[in-house]
Amino acid sequence: MNTKDLRYIKTEELIRSAFLNLAERTTIENIHIKDICAEAKISRNAFYGHYESKYELLERICKDASENMLSSLTEETVQNLRENLMYGVTEWCIQVVYEHRDLMRVLSKSSPAHFQKIIRYVFIESTLKELYTGTENIQKNIILKMSEAYISDALTSIIQIWLEDPSTISVRDLAKFLHSISHHAAAFFYAKLDENKNIKRRK
Amino acid sequence: MNTKDLRYIKTEELIRSAFLNLAERTTIENIHIKDICAEAKISRNAFYGHYESKYELLERICKDASENMLSSLTEETVQNLRENLMYGVTEWCIQVVYEHRDLMRVLSKSSPAHFQKIIRYVFIESTLKELYTGTENIQKNIILKMSEAYISDALTSIIQIWLEDPSTISVRDLAKFLHSISHHAAAFFYAKLDENKNIKRRK
Repeated sequence: MNTKDLRYIKTEELIRSAFLNLAERTTIENIHIKDICAEAKISRNAFYGHYESKYELLERICKDASENMLSSLTEETVQNLRENLMYGVTEWCIQVVYEHRDLMRVLSKSSPAHFQKIIRYVFIESTLKELYTGTENIQKNIILKMSEAYISDALTSIIQIWLEDPSTISVRDLAKFLHSISHHAAAFFYAKLDENKNIKRRK
Repeated sequence: MNTKDLRYIKTEELIRSAFLNLAERTTIENIHIKDICAEAKISRNAFYGHYESKYELLERICKDASENMLSSLTEETVQNLRENLMYGVTEWCIQVVYEHRDLMRVLSKSSPAHFQKIIRYVFIESTLKELYTGTENIQKNIILKMSEAYISDALTSIIQIWLEDPSTISVRDLAKFLHSISHHAAAFFYAKLDENKNIKRRK
């Protein structure tokens, strides 16, 4: 199948938007291939020409979203991270979630585990890899592992509440709040990373 | 049914320990009444003489655990809270979880949502009620709501990792770490509570 074929691209769009429409109304477990096909007005064969299962489709949607979000990680933001200027990073994080708010809201309701994984991957794991080598050692040290989980789950929790109704607080005010409540924990985590001899700052 | 009857008490113990044995090996959704009865070597009628469903049983176990954990909240700990001496509170929290580690570990694996609810109820909601009146207003203010969720989910996350193997770090070291990473966020939350005119410190 030629994935650049216009009909293929059109069907792919129909599948994704049908899946997300259904995910607005129920959890991933309760979505069946036949519902996706009915919503997209395509045949089962057309669906299976693109994906083996709804889980493969969900993984692909999450992977694309993560890559999209990460593509906005500029050298300036990385430089802020390097210099421990946490505010710029916090602002980037909130801004990026805001730009992807429709998809993120659907994922946070229909599949909290995938939502949590995206937040962790984009805002914690990927940014740490920009700053350090040897980040795979984080999981081998209980304090580092707990610090990463603390920051990641606290961030997920705030974003999840925000996405219930993004109009209750502005991007700017949320970035300010998130910075106020979390910059100390982030600084603590960086200090512990810097103490670990298997994890090195990139120049 | 006389709930003080010795046979009744014995059956209750059998049901609870059978349920927790099963919960060690699988999630709550996959436990059926017939499995509980087989494990406890009791009849279905005996089970239904105690509970209407596995969910009622689970709720009761969680309620008893919460009350048990809260019964160790001494006036001294509350006084520490009042004076913003966060270390004493952190130590109490870790010590209490340690004393209930077997049950808490099983719950954190078999029903993460119930586990999270207990942590939040015992260590956040109940301690706040000791300190303030009007805590029901927390949910009406986005910054307070997010702060509470931040602290509660970050704490849950750390405890969950710890319970995978409580021997990796001592109660004392974990309390020290938790205090280091979280005292700033807790102080921020208290400051915001003190600013809110619908929430008042108890004398």
